[in-house]
Amino acid sequence: MYEELKRAVCEANIELQTHKLVIYSWGNVSGIDHAAGIVAIKPSGVPYDELTPDKMVLLELDGNIVEGNLRPSSDTPSHLELYRNFKTVGGICHTHSVNAAMWAQANREIPCLGTTHADFFYGPIPITETMTAEEIKTNYELNTGKVIVRRFAGMDPLQMPAVLVANHGPFTWGKTPADAVEAAVVLEQVAAMALGAIMINPKLKKIEQVLLDKHYLRKHGKNAYYGQK
Amino acid sequence: MYEELKRAVCEANIELQTHKLVIYSWGNVSGIDHAAGIVAIKPSGVPYDELTPDKMVLLELDGNIVEGNLRPSSDTPSHLELYRNFKTVGGICHTHSVNAAMWAQANREIPCLGTTHADFFYGPIPITETMTAEEIKTNYELNTGKVIVRRFAGMDPLQMPAVLVANHGPFTWGKTPADAVEAAVVLEQVAAMALGAIMINPKLKKIEQVLLDKHYLRKHGKNAYYGQK
Amino acid sequence: MYEELKRAVCEANIELQTHKLVIYSWGNVSGIDHAAGIVAIKPSGVPYDELTPDKMVLLELDGNIVEGNLRPSSDTPSHLELYRNFKTVGGICHTHSVNAAMWAQANREIPCLGTTHADFFYGPIPITETMTAEEIKTNYELNTGKVIVRRFAGMDPLQMPAVLVANHGPFTWGKTPADAVEAAVVLEQVAAMALGAIMINPKLKKIEQVLLDKHYLRKHGKNAYYGQK
Amino acid sequence: MYEELKRAVCEANIELQTHKLVIYSWGNVSGIDHAAGIVAIKPSGVPYDELTPDKMVLLELDGNIVEGNLRPSSDTPSHLELYRNFKTVGGICHTHSVNAAMWAQANREIPCLGTTHADFFYGPIPITETMTAEEIKTNYELNTGKVIVRRFAGMDPLQMPAVLVANHGPFTWGKTPADAVEAAVVLEQVAAMALGAIMINPKLKKIEQVLLDKHYLRKHGKNAYYGQK
Repeated sequence: MYEELKRAVCEANIELQTHKLVIYSWGNVSGIDHAAGIVAIKPSGVPYDELTPDKMVLLELDGNIVEGNLRPSSDTPSHLELYRNFKTVGGICHTHSVNAAMWAQANREIPCLGTTHADFFYGPIPITETMTAEEIKTNYELNTGKVIVRRFAGMDPLQMPAVLVANHGPFTWGKTPADAVEAAVVLEQVAAMALGAIMINPKLKKIEQVLLDKHYLRKHGKNAYYGQK
Repeated sequence: MYEELKRAVCEANIELQTHKLVIYSWGNVSGIDHAAGIVAIKPSGVPYDELTPDKMVLLELDGNIVEGNLRPSSDTPSHLELYRNFKTVGGICHTHSVNAAMWAQANREIPCLGTTHADFFYGPIPITETMTAEEIKTNYELNTGKVIVRRFAGMDPLQMPAVLVANHGPFTWGKTPADAVEAAVVLEQVAAMALGAIMINPKLKKIEQVLLDKHYLRKHGKNAYYGQK
Repeated sequence: MYEELKRAVCEANIELQTHKLVIYSWGNVSGIDHAAGIVAIKPSGVPYDELTPDKMVLLELDGNIVEGNLRPSSDTPSHLELYRNFKTVGGICHTHSVNAAMWAQANREIPCLGTTHADFFYGPIPITETMTAEEIKTNYELNTGKVIVRRFAGMDPLQMPAVLVANHGPFTWGKTPADAVEAAVVLEQVAAMALGAIMINPKLKKIEQVLLDKHYLRKHGKNAYYGQK
Repeated sequence: MYEELKRAVCEANIELQTHKLVIYSWGNVSGIDHAAGIVAIKPSGVPYDELTPDKMVLLELDGNIVEGNLRPSSDTPSHLELYRNFKTVGGICHTHSVNAAMWAQANREIPCLGTTHADFFYGPIPITETMTAEEIKTNYELNTGKVIVRRFAGMDPLQMPAVLVANHGPFTWGKTPADAVEAAVVLEQVAAMALGAIMINPKLKKIEQVLLDKHYLRKHGKNAYYGQK
């Protein structure tokens, strides 16, 4: 069951390696069938070259494992917390991609400095609060999800499909697992461009709202006019 | 019709991916038959691996589509505006290549800091003015072309086959679509070298005009002595 | 004899090239059979493409060559000194990987700025003292080992499987030759992330001990819960 | 005639592309038979994929072409000037490799900041004087050679097989064309490491002479003990 979901999640995980966002078994992608309340996620610590759809682990939203002989990603509680709160999100991705991780480690949001950023992300890439000792000691991965959800209060996660967890790295998401990976790839480019830009011009300010609106909305929403549909 | 033009434009687009200037379906290259007034351009949002000459879209200079089942690149109005004004230009390329985009996002021209730059670009890589809210809101892509043309008043576009659109990224061009892509590749190298150079020596000045003249003119113009012809 | 040891050491050396940590014949990996007191190490100056298990050199811990027609790596005395003092270490790796070497050359330890670092290294990556003229002039490679051992007084080398030799580059290690190479690969990522992070935020401080504990201990030690075992 | 020389020069040129030091037809390598006074060099503007030994151009030291249907590299007069003055040099290489060019464009010598540098280069990588307007306007390539030779007064070119031409890029050399390319590859790594190191620690000083001596002399000269001979 859920063969298509497992296949899509497996393929999206393998894309992480293809796009050089991960080494070894780092990173993970999940997908959800919201109607059924079933999540598929990469198993923990398995190298990408060994991933096949049948190795994906199926869980319910409360963490109960429905299918799979392998342990799910240790980050599973973060994914589940996001799915419980982001009802429009169909896929989630977590990596330690180098450029995005630089910003996460620097505890800085990535300001919107250009149209590459604006084409995909409707504002600065937010950074979470630093987690408290209590949040870290107990239910750390669940609390990682909670700190992200807290940061997104009042925000539409599909308009901002990325977050930097402070001191850690990015989570990205989208309507599908493949979209979540695309957001991770684009975020990595945006993070690299932003670092270079502030080195060239340390006093650089974010772009004007009108330019952000133009680029984001020409690719997203009911007035989009990019692509073939 | 225009088979050779479509083939040249298709090949030049694929070169963007070969040279790692683009990911996904980002970027676009066009070419023109000035005598016929016909432009060929990449379709919008189609991945590079799926590009074939017959998918190129043919348009007249006023934007009227002559041939093609796919929508042309959303940046088509920028290309057309450049062709209407740069009569010697036969191919145009637009990317968000990372190093050039850093400078565009930083709102800084790339000063001519060395002979790699001088071999191809006869002066600093210009940056456009920031576009006004009005220019952005209505006919944005057309106005992107206009702001480039305005920046090139009094300049020979074949002597400076590149521009940085402020907050955005580079457009490059040349006598052919292939030349436009070559300019994009060289610009990316030049942008990387310039960033490193100003980090090593923040007080660095542009090279002397005599050195710029020597390198540019040994490769271009009637006294060139580089290569085999 | 020691076929398995030689095979493991040969494979680990080749991994250095696969992961782009070395060029030409730079770098070296060794492994030890502690029970037998036998070390296998890469021969000196042999390109990676020509490495085969039978070319590995076998030595006793005092440097006496037991098997092999080729001269062992010129860094062999450093390896032997580490094995004599780090009884839990089964493999050692030395490279001049670019990002780690930047920190070594800068004479700076790599502070623990994020969870990628904390997942593998239980604290800042230490840097050795600068070696004295006497230590350099006589028995340089042996003294390189000694200055590392001195830096690790009171430390568990398996909790900190990496060091930066000042002005030089990294040594890494682990339970096996493969683990030593993995530590070198991760160190290179960590070094790159740390450089970017301090460029974005020059006042950046190390992460809290509680976060370091959480990430290191969820992957290492008796309460680890990452992976499949 | 000179088949072996042409083959060695052709192979060394192709190595430039393999090691990603060049794009398009940039860069050039030459070799010399000092006894015969014959130099072989890459033809001008020919892509690397099209290079074959028979396309190499043979010249005498005064620039007289002995064999070859193609025009020699436009940098040929620089190479010849170096061969006329550096009698121990058997191969010369010129590239615009990105990291080395950053330092050349910054008009800064590369200080010796670590042992990777010291293993190959016996001191800081020197930078030439800025060329005068007269030197640039007339016989520019010959004068490029002269400004290098002037910079090396009293120096042994085999102990320092690299130079940065100010505002331009590196020339490297060695006993053979292959050695000249190896120096170019190592220089590129050294340039990258040095840039990172001064960004981490802007007050960084060069390494002590004793460490430079140790590393350089363990690989070069009569007391060398690296490798298999």
